[in-house]
Amino acid sequence: MSEYKMHGIYAPIATPFTDALGPIAFDKLEKNMEFWTASDMEGIVVMGSNGEFVMLDFEERKEVITKVCDMAKGKKYVIAGCGCENTRDTIKLCEHAAKAGANAALLISPNYYKKAMTDAVNENFYTSAADKSPIPVILYNMPGNTGINLSSAFVAKMAQHKNIIGVKDSGGNIVQISEILRDVPKDFSVFAGSASFLLTTLLLGGTGGTLALANIFPNECAKVQTLFDAGKMKEATELQKKLLASNNAVTARWGIAGLKAAMELRGLQGGAPRSPLLPLKDEDRATLKGIIDEVLKG
Amino acid sequence: MSEYKMHGIYAPIATPFTDALGPIAFDKLEKNMEFWTASDMEGIVVMGSNGEFVMLDFEERKEVITKVCDMAKGKKYVIAGCGCENTRDTIKLCEHAAKAGANAALLISPNYYKKAMTDAVNENFYTSAADKSPIPVILYNMPGNTGINLSSAFVAKMAQHKNIIGVKDSGGNIVQISEILRDVPKDFSVFAGSASFLLTTLLLGGTGGTLALANIFPNECAKVQTLFDAGKMKEATELQKKLLASNNAVTARWGIAGLKAAMELRGLQGGAPRSPLLPLKDEDRATLKGIIDEVLKG
Amino acid sequence: MSEYKMHGIYAPIATPFTDALGPIAFDKLEKNMEFWTASDMEGIVVMGSNGEFVMLDFEERKEVITKVCDMAKGKKYVIAGCGCENTRDTIKLCEHAAKAGANAALLISPNYYKKAMTDAVNENFYTSAADKSPIPVILYNMPGNTGINLSSAFVAKMAQHKNIIGVKDSGGNIVQISEILRDVPKDFSVFAGSASFLLTTLLLGGTGGTLALANIFPNECAKVQTLFDAGKMKEATELQKKLLASNNAVTARWGIAGLKAAMELRGLQGGAPRSPLLPLKDEDRATLKGIIDEVLKG
Amino acid sequence: MSEYKMHGIYAPIATPFTDALGPIAFDKLEKNMEFWTASDMEGIVVMGSNGEFVMLDFEERKEVITKVCDMAKGKKYVIAGCGCENTRDTIKLCEHAAKAGANAALLISPNYYKKAMTDAVNENFYTSAADKSPIPVILYNMPGNTGINLSSAFVAKMAQHKNIIGVKDSGGNIVQISEILRDVPKDFSVFAGSASFLLTTLLLGGTGGTLALANIFPNECAKVQTLFDAGKMKEATELQKKLLASNNAVTARWGIAGLKAAMELRGLQGGAPRSPLLPLKDEDRATLKGIIDEVLKG
Repeated sequence: MSEYKMHGIYAPIATPFTDALGPIAFDKLEKNMEFWTASDMEGIVVMGSNGEFVMLDFEERKEVITKVCDMAKGKKYVIAGCGCENTRDTIKLCEHAAKAGANAALLISPNYYKKAMTDAVNENFYTSAADKSPIPVILYNMPGNTGINLSSAFVAKMAQHKNIIGVKDSGGNIVQISEILRDVPKDFSVFAGSASFLLTTLLLGGTGGTLALANIFPNECAKVQTLFDAGKMKEATELQKKLLASNNAVTARWGIAGLKAAMELRGLQGGAPRSPLLPLKDEDRATLKGIIDEVLKG
Repeated sequence: MSEYKMHGIYAPIATPFTDALGPIAFDKLEKNMEFWTASDMEGIVVMGSNGEFVMLDFEERKEVITKVCDMAKGKKYVIAGCGCENTRDTIKLCEHAAKAGANAALLISPNYYKKAMTDAVNENFYTSAADKSPIPVILYNMPGNTGINLSSAFVAKMAQHKNIIGVKDSGGNIVQISEILRDVPKDFSVFAGSASFLLTTLLLGGTGGTLALANIFPNECAKVQTLFDAGKMKEATELQKKLLASNNAVTARWGIAGLKAAMELRGLQGGAPRSPLLPLKDEDRATLKGIIDEVLKG
Repeated sequence: MSEYKMHGIYAPIATPFTDALGPIAFDKLEKNMEFWTASDMEGIVVMGSNGEFVMLDFEERKEVITKVCDMAKGKKYVIAGCGCENTRDTIKLCEHAAKAGANAALLISPNYYKKAMTDAVNENFYTSAADKSPIPVILYNMPGNTGINLSSAFVAKMAQHKNIIGVKDSGGNIVQISEILRDVPKDFSVFAGSASFLLTTLLLGGTGGTLALANIFPNECAKVQTLFDAGKMKEATELQKKLLASNNAVTARWGIAGLKAAMELRGLQGGAPRSPLLPLKDEDRATLKGIIDEVLKG
Repeated sequence: MSEYKMHGIYAPIATPFTDALGPIAFDKLEKNMEFWTASDMEGIVVMGSNGEFVMLDFEERKEVITKVCDMAKGKKYVIAGCGCENTRDTIKLCEHAAKAGANAALLISPNYYKKAMTDAVNENFYTSAADKSPIPVILYNMPGNTGINLSSAFVAKMAQHKNIIGVKDSGGNIVQISEILRDVPKDFSVFAGSASFLLTTLLLGGTGGTLALANIFPNECAKVQTLFDAGKMKEATELQKKLLASNNAVTARWGIAGLKAAMELRGLQGGAPRSPLLPLKDEDRATLKGIIDEVLKG
């Protein structure tokens, strides 16, 4: 456990279904995993927001985690999304992920009872889970979906727990990320939660990112970090800017529908999101193709 | 199915647990049900937000629905909270609730992928579920928890579906409630989602309410409607104002922790919410007692 | 001073300009005043949000207040919008309005430095101004424009000041309005800030409203209150609902551009709002005409 | 006009008053100007948000602009805050600033009528003003105070106007800043609006910043850019992080009250903000001293 370090680019992988109301399509998932495990990424996040974890029941979540750990074995690290609204199920899922071979558990902050989610409640959640989890825990701050922000002071406090090893911050508030990196211990890792602020996060001391865009452009995302590590700031900045439009397409603009359509345009297995989410409209798919081609032509 | 009409006061009942990390305490639930079924309320909402439905796994939700339907049989109507993030599980739960004997299914709007929740996606959700549900469907608008508002135009459109019979609006935007009541068919029911705007909703044509406060003050809530129906506007207004503070205590101010503490102060079975939610602090409990006593002394 | 009581319907009157970049058109204003002073309204609000007070410089504001007081003399009460971002100019304007003959001063809460606008700062503002103002002061809560809400607790505290006689609440949070009416002294008046929640405010104990819609439908707005006072709740509710669409058109939907276009459709002097605000588009004007005709045909 | 280029660090200077309800203290301003004009900054912003421009009447604004231009002559560039809610006064102020010798006009987006502030209205505002202004115009995006965001697409469009030469973005959304820098012409300048994201803005291609913190630490702020320009990324990042706490103190945390107290702690002329703003409390002043000393000890 103590060996694993959060570093590099991870894709929060999409979950393919047979159709909008149907079961998980594990054969499609397997094909996609071949692409991702052969890429320059360091790891895989299974059951993140882009993996439609809220769309799966508890047994399905366990099954996907198991299968992805098996497929990634010896090839890529695996971070498993184990956060539930309640602590009890969260711990169960961490235990399951540990047995399945995951390297760490990513815990989204509980969010339905927004007004109740004080720092005390969040602390209760994360420390209770981290105390019991056999694998290290990673905080997952995703205000766009949860409506809740984990402040830099809160993250710095949680970073003192020996089984909490990092944070994935998808909020994109670069001042908050700066404050976190100022206040956490050296061995606590900060991951950008979106390709759009990967480079600025690295500049401030972040060690990588979990990026929806890495589902379709794993090597391009990894290259931003390689260039940065080599001190090639100009090239890194140019590449970062070039990735903005495609990242926007698969996140803020079209969400999971956009991501799955983009995967198809890249030769991967996409398909429909689970209902009620709707697949991308044809006219948007054409626009999306143009955006992706822009990246491919370099 | 066509017989059931939404009318009167319902309590969205709390779910007792053995402790913060433990299972459901059905014995406690049974004792509470004796109080509620003997009250002046017309019905029970099982697995609403105050019932911590997001804290239960799928099997637990089914079990609570079954037990409450059994306990309420012949005494009170039952509306079952059946909404899930995905359509597939929502339909399964509606089918289960129908078999259990519930009169209608209350469907919270899906809300994790906030930016994706367009009117088209919400329409896909509600019409897919209503098409398949054996029991009538009720829209559940709860922007405080979901971060999403179902507009009056959307509600009016859904009201055209023959298996969608009403809306519980917990947003409290009285202009929106006015617009809904202007635009829906006569047989479509509008329920206030909080005791604080019960009377104003009734004035505009609403037929009742699903009120957290009814867990502890079912008869007082019912009396607001009785007074209104009798044209006693002054007394109704006075009683409405008197209930504001206690309602605030068990909703906006202290949430489920406040509700469960208030239940204990009223001689009911409360206990801790499920972790990570925290029980009410002792000092707040003392304040709460004062607020409740204020109502009791009349 | 002690004689004036806030009661009845007031129009926050629009300010006509010669053109989008030109000076105030006092001749047009005079024609409009003839219509308003002949109506069933009890008063006029000059230099409210609908009067584009932020678009005028200090001298222009003073001039409009003077002229409107002169025109209204002996016919209607006048409330003058005197709120500025700083206390110093606010007091100057209150003194000017008093000399001009206004009955009370309406003070919008300062709002540019949003994070600084704590209750302590707001209290400093209102009590400093009320201490010095020769005419009674009315709180003006307008969160849609200011981004700041004056809470029910704050309003109740301010209501203790002997020169603060009421509040115009344009937020439309009916629970907040209920709490205010529960907590303020009997002689403190609460005005609805929009026709859309006039009736519900009256039910809870409000004494009238300052309504954009009263610019074009003063008698219809006044009739809601007359019906309510006569205990004709059904007719009042029907009329309230009928006014929703036209009120929405001249507030939330099209704002001042909609209001001025609606004035022209009603035979009044409208014209363009001051730049950068843009006049209503032709296609929207056609829609607006349909909405207004709906009210006129009764 | 075509000569001036936005580059380097600017302080949006505070405006001293004799007291909370009194006039501008020009003698204090003059002493402060001696400090700033002797610093490593490239320029001064007069009548920005930190200069309490909304607290001054039109004549006072003109007078401050004139005086500051005189004091800065031959020593520092001057950008004058000339934005008003209406276009007419905005143009007047641009003309005044030009005569006074200001190098450019900074125009805050109009913001009282929030719902009306569409891209079309903002475009009307900025192009009307830029067409007429004798000096170049700079967009000022300040969502924290205005409640309105100027999107990257809008900024890119405005950047086509030959008299609009740059943007000061105080929103701090680093993705938006990235998009702007991707989409604007080479000679359009992007300024960070806060010291907290100065370095990341420079990395992406920004040319400087207008920083509240530069009122008290002009040389330290300038050094961030010097280090960046020299390719000393590690030192630049360290210094950037060290400035975070003091910047937070004079912006988000304590605002203008904090800034003026900090100025006094640095030997400058601070004093009270204009009423209703309140001066910093004594206990907060002690905390502030600790934060400032932390920077000074290096």
